[in-house]
Amino acid sequence: METKRDSKTEMVTKALVQHLSNTRYEELPREAIEEAKRSLLNWLGVAIGAAGHPSMDIVLRLARMVGGKEQVTVLGRGIKTDLLFAALLNGMSSHIYDFDDTLLETVLHPSAPIYPAILSYAEHRGLTGRDVLFAFVLGCEVAARTALCLYPSHYWRGWHITGTAGTIGAAAAVAKLQGLDEERYSYALGIAATEPTGLREMFGSMTKPLHPGKAAMNGLMAALLAGWGFTSSAQALEAKRGFARVLADDPKLHLIHEGWGESWEIMKNSYKPFASGIVTHPAIDGAIRLRNLHGIQPNRIERIELEVHPLVVELTGKIDPQTGLEGKFSVYHCTAVALLDGKAGVKQFTDERVKDEQVVSLRKKIRVKVERKLQEDQVLIRVTLKDGAVIEEFVEHAIGSIYVPMTNRQLEEKFIDVTADVLSSEKQQRLIDLVWRFDQLEELHSFFALCH
Amino acid sequence: METKRDSKTEMVTKALVQHLSNTRYEELPREAIEEAKRSLLNWLGVAIGAAGHPSMDIVLRLARMVGGKEQVTVLGRGIKTDLLFAALLNGMSSHIYDFDDTLLETVLHPSAPIYPAILSYAEHRGLTGRDVLFAFVLGCEVAARTALCLYPSHYWRGWHITGTAGTIGAAAAVAKLQGLDEERYSYALGIAATEPTGLREMFGSMTKPLHPGKAAMNGLMAALLAGWGFTSSAQALEAKRGFARVLADDPKLHLIHEGWGESWEIMKNSYKPFASGIVTHPAIDGAIRLRNLHGIQPNRIERIELEVHPLVVELTGKIDPQTGLEGKFSVYHCTAVALLDGKAGVKQFTDERVKDEQVVSLRKKIRVKVERKLQEDQVLIRVTLKDGAVIEEFVEHAIGSIYVPMTNRQLEEKFIDVTADVLSSEKQQRLIDLVWRFDQLEELHSFFALCH
Repeated sequence: METKRDSKTEMVTKALVQHLSNTRYEELPREAIEEAKRSLLNWLGVAIGAAGHPSMDIVLRLARMVGGKEQVTVLGRGIKTDLLFAALLNGMSSHIYDFDDTLLETVLHPSAPIYPAILSYAEHRGLTGRDVLFAFVLGCEVAARTALCLYPSHYWRGWHITGTAGTIGAAAAVAKLQGLDEERYSYALGIAATEPTGLREMFGSMTKPLHPGKAAMNGLMAALLAGWGFTSSAQALEAKRGFARVLADDPKLHLIHEGWGESWEIMKNSYKPFASGIVTHPAIDGAIRLRNLHGIQPNRIERIELEVHPLVVELTGKIDPQTGLEGKFSVYHCTAVALLDGKAGVKQFTDERVKDEQVVSLRKKIRVKVERKLQEDQVLIRVTLKDGAVIEEFVEHAIGSIYVPMTNRQLEEKFIDVTADVLSSEKQQRLIDLVWRFDQLEELHSFFALCH
Repeated sequence: METKRDSKTEMVTKALVQHLSNTRYEELPREAIEEAKRSLLNWLGVAIGAAGHPSMDIVLRLARMVGGKEQVTVLGRGIKTDLLFAALLNGMSSHIYDFDDTLLETVLHPSAPIYPAILSYAEHRGLTGRDVLFAFVLGCEVAARTALCLYPSHYWRGWHITGTAGTIGAAAAVAKLQGLDEERYSYALGIAATEPTGLREMFGSMTKPLHPGKAAMNGLMAALLAGWGFTSSAQALEAKRGFARVLADDPKLHLIHEGWGESWEIMKNSYKPFASGIVTHPAIDGAIRLRNLHGIQPNRIERIELEVHPLVVELTGKIDPQTGLEGKFSVYHCTAVALLDGKAGVKQFTDERVKDEQVVSLRKKIRVKVERKLQEDQVLIRVTLKDGAVIEEFVEHAIGSIYVPMTNRQLEEKFIDVTADVLSSEKQQRLIDLVWRFDQLEELHSFFALCH
């Protein structure tokens, strides 16, 4: 096809695949592997914690109807399904709480689409912990670079970048584990590229977590097919009718391959301290600070004003949520529960809490104003009390951002909190221990056996 | 979300679902059911004929690795897989030859993504021939209207419309068979909408037929999940960050639901007399006419000039194809074999034929010029002989277009030709007979038993 002769861009997919093929585990900085473990602990907790969600039951019903082999663990469920459905289910469950990790530059959640694909393949093939962490660092790098290439036009157009760039990252990670030659590696990316999943319209429904689930499943499937000789385009990312140009209006293709190995995107990964959309975190952080510093009584509040980045209203502008899920996409609800409860964990986003009279009453006192000068991780929150007093708090960088990262200890506490309804405390501690020495695990059977 | 309150557009998905729910078999004109049978015969032949392709073996290897139940027939293979993989495989095989049906206004191939989803569900649930034809007319209507809404910006941007609009059509067809209520019906369309498959960059590789395969699989999966209560957006097609606005620059949303029942898109379906991309057909038709009318000897030809619609070069501009598959996307190759062989069936697009010395020599004598005044089904072909004589032919409407449709007899001949390597002539005749009285089949076991 004529587009394949465009000399300016013809090297993008090829260059990326060469980087991937040539990178060795020993070249990765120790910090990148450590960050991959932090990502694993955070991701594993939310995947196990949400595994009992009704949407999981529905997909499991389909898996049983299809009746594939019991070959890979469904985290938090005590069962196995075939390796494709396991990737789908684990990808879904880890995104149900909206409590997973985020690369803040592009709002990409890297673990949800990539770890399930890697773990399905690794469990099926009996790979090691080191294999898994290595593949994740590379898959995360590919997904993050793809997201940077597409962002922001892609996201503003309406794509859920975790489902689109995530599919490419998942395929890249599994293909590395397979040790594909450069031609088949590029076909794996091609097959993945033709199946972008995720419209932002689906936010607030069960279909949102389906996006990283399908990304994991499709990415794994793409790599397996390519490994057996299924052909595709070798220029899927850069071609005229290829992934980047079709899915974005101004793709920055050089970001996909230039400067490979100089730094690793995994080092920018951030973990959510709160169980709602990342853009609500500054408001929650500010509300908790106000509550803790000033001991505000809800019944003394006259009104609350928030000044926020435009994306906050775009993504979480729901004024009157009716379900726990909708509450996660309502900066109004998030701010109200943060002021009332001093936290915003899983329990703050149940249907009951969203409908609670006191919460609803406080939500109605909140007004949100877009302030274009603010960064995405900033907020100004101003509370006017009935006695006329005004107190305000400016959040420069919300907790959980790369400027104020969660500590390993805080990640452990979050893991224990989110898995409390599923795992015994003994299993929690053993899993935490295994994750911190994941690179030394020669086999993963004992790890998977603990995940429910 | 704010977009859900857009009063101008909020009724599109809902209106479509209401139409689908309310339409009864008895309301369809007899001609629509007859056309659905013609579509079935044409589709079935190319699906069975290409079932032995290497790409099918690769996907079957994955199906066996997953190990699902043997519940639905893989056409032309004499085996069963689980119902999802069967939808994928049958969707793929029917598009491998590029010899399936086309709605010419949008270049949508309706049968490849929709029939496999319907037949998987129907075989699994023991439905009747009438159920299948009814669901196909409705699924085709939805896919065609969705394609009309998206076309042309969607296609020009780089989407393979058969994989995108086809997914919606497949979900709509299966959801009708399930008898979903309006809410779940809309969720089925929502889940399907978030998984558009198919970049045009993949044309010429095994990934192209994967598109309708995944469309069938994803559409079926979407309908099954929605039927069990999986939630999605109820405004997936029209929302601000929904399907049409994300995948097209100027969607014509009213075309999705207005005028429902006044006419049926299936009546515009056309069947390819030639085994290559539809846009090459006028050139092939013209070349065959020149050959038959003037008995041209290839070695007497000095040069050949084609004047074509712009899409011909865009889609099939490959000057020097190296494989049979690439030959289908080369108007140069198509014209050459038509002049040499007087036809353009499956045998004209083998690797051997593409590399044949006489074919290559003739291809090099062809020049293609874009003529914007021409319609997509028109061509001017001008042959200059070495003795200076010039003969030319203008094709007003190529054979296979809605103006010069293939007859039932021609469709039977095509079926017999494409399935010759797979089916005995007794099976061919019995299948042809079953398809012509498909609306009277109370069970489909005997039909599926004949399909290999």
